[in-house]
Amino acid sequence: MNKEFISEQFLALQAQIVRELEEIDGVGLFSVDRWEREEGGGGRTQTIANGQVLEKGGVAFSAVHGAVSETMKKQLQLDGESFYATGVSIVLHPKHPFVPIIHMNVRYFELNDGTYWFGGGIDLTPHYVDEEAAQKFHQNLKTICDEFNPEFYSKFKPWADDYFYIPHRNETRGIGGIFFDHLDATCGIGKEQIFEFCLKLGQNFPRIYGEQVALGIVQPFNEENSNWQNHRRGRYVEFNLVNDKGTKFGLFSGGRTESILMSLPPLANWTYCLPVKKNSIEAKTLKKLIKGVDWLK
Amino acid sequence: MNKEFISEQFLALQAQIVRELEEIDGVGLFSVDRWEREEGGGGRTQTIANGQVLEKGGVAFSAVHGAVSETMKKQLQLDGESFYATGVSIVLHPKHPFVPIIHMNVRYFELNDGTYWFGGGIDLTPHYVDEEAAQKFHQNLKTICDEFNPEFYSKFKPWADDYFYIPHRNETRGIGGIFFDHLDATCGIGKEQIFEFCLKLGQNFPRIYGEQVALGIVQPFNEENSNWQNHRRGRYVEFNLVNDKGTKFGLFSGGRTESILMSLPPLANWTYCLPVKKNSIEAKTLKKLIKGVDWLK
Repeated sequence: MNKEFISEQFLALQAQIVRELEEIDGVGLFSVDRWEREEGGGGRTQTIANGQVLEKGGVAFSAVHGAVSETMKKQLQLDGESFYATGVSIVLHPKHPFVPIIHMNVRYFELNDGTYWFGGGIDLTPHYVDEEAAQKFHQNLKTICDEFNPEFYSKFKPWADDYFYIPHRNETRGIGGIFFDHLDATCGIGKEQIFEFCLKLGQNFPRIYGEQVALGIVQPFNEENSNWQNHRRGRYVEFNLVNDKGTKFGLFSGGRTESILMSLPPLANWTYCLPVKKNSIEAKTLKKLIKGVDWLK
Repeated sequence: MNKEFISEQFLALQAQIVRELEEIDGVGLFSVDRWEREEGGGGRTQTIANGQVLEKGGVAFSAVHGAVSETMKKQLQLDGESFYATGVSIVLHPKHPFVPIIHMNVRYFELNDGTYWFGGGIDLTPHYVDEEAAQKFHQNLKTICDEFNPEFYSKFKPWADDYFYIPHRNETRGIGGIFFDHLDATCGIGKEQIFEFCLKLGQNFPRIYGEQVALGIVQPFNEENSNWQNHRRGRYVEFNLVNDKGTKFGLFSGGRTESILMSLPPLANWTYCLPVKKNSIEAKTLKKLIKGVDWLK
């Protein structure tokens, strides 16, 4: 199983996900943007705007290669001369405030000396936390994890809690999910199996998100809810620009800015010291944005 | 001239600026928020929302002190044991897209060994660059600089160009202004004079901004202009969260988040690969967001 094969499968995964997301949206269609990277490789970024369900979203594929730069050596603590990296990244911002934002990423990295690893994960950022929906989401992830390694979920769930955390707000970005990085044969399953795991996550992504859409979209909402949504989207911006190692690495290493920042919401607001009413659904949401919640209980 | 005196003068400066900005706004009033810092000191943050001219703005005073932390040693390359820092920071987001965003900061820093310096500056971020307005703005700054040291403007203007630059967009944040840091007696004028310079900048701030408001507010605007404004505000967010050393230092060193992030706009939007029409006023603005423009020509 060589890197070209992995990359082709990721490209096919992107196409499958886009098709199924278009079905979920019902009206909106994704546009496609092909781009090349001067130093080697390129990508295919697919985006949607003003859909029926998806207000803004992107499903990005890339396969890039080249010399290991000084930035990469320093930030990724790499030792090789040349690298190959391929993956699929998704961020979806729904229009409806009771439908959550979702993020998915699967990626493969290889050095010229044969060292390789996989990374990725799926995490959910509801504007309003709903425990039933959160439980369904985590159960879906656990079921896929368990198929490959009974330890995965219990390792990757707290990893997501730690990764998607905003220290300056003392809040998690959302209700987490799973996050993993540097997965190689030392993780207990072989390379083919890890790749299968990544693919399976991706292939199940539309179904998992479709479930969340179905749960949220039936709820009535008003302007106050949309304002809160934009406020929470502001936090999403803060995490991505201040805390997300992936975004920062991408921007500082000269990645394609528009593909990296497709994660940012269509609209976000910031209000100084936004008041939150006691016992409101907003207050209840804030109480759930902490690490270590066992959503499967 | 001791640190307490400087801090008192900064506090009075904040009050003056708020009074004059309320006059400029005509309707909106600033609220006041006093806060204390566990490790020593505190501040007074004054904010406005939904004014007639100012959609969102803050004028923040702080005077904090304490032990020099590891973060400070590393990020500020300091060598002392304890520090004292006081200053006034302003960011104003106007409602009208033809009125620019403005930022001002004056600050004083002292270590227990007697080392001290001043820093600060004023810079302008028009959503639409108007050359006449930019010239007036820079002329105001140059006039104040020249009163104190004929070299200041020619040093501090390119410093602002370099500081307020967004590498991942290859754009300056706006049309710059002046920026300076680590000003002590080696800058050619004495401590009292540097302080006078900072005060004078602050005292003239409302007049300088008032001029910009007067120039922009008479222009008619439509929804397209407001969308562009929110798009440019998105860039402001990107600079502040990704590139601004001050913001990052504040957040990572445990500063008061709501005071630091009062700089963020009331609303911002992100559109994937936003199309800009050739020869439009938007396209003309983008061409001006580069370093090294001599606005006084």
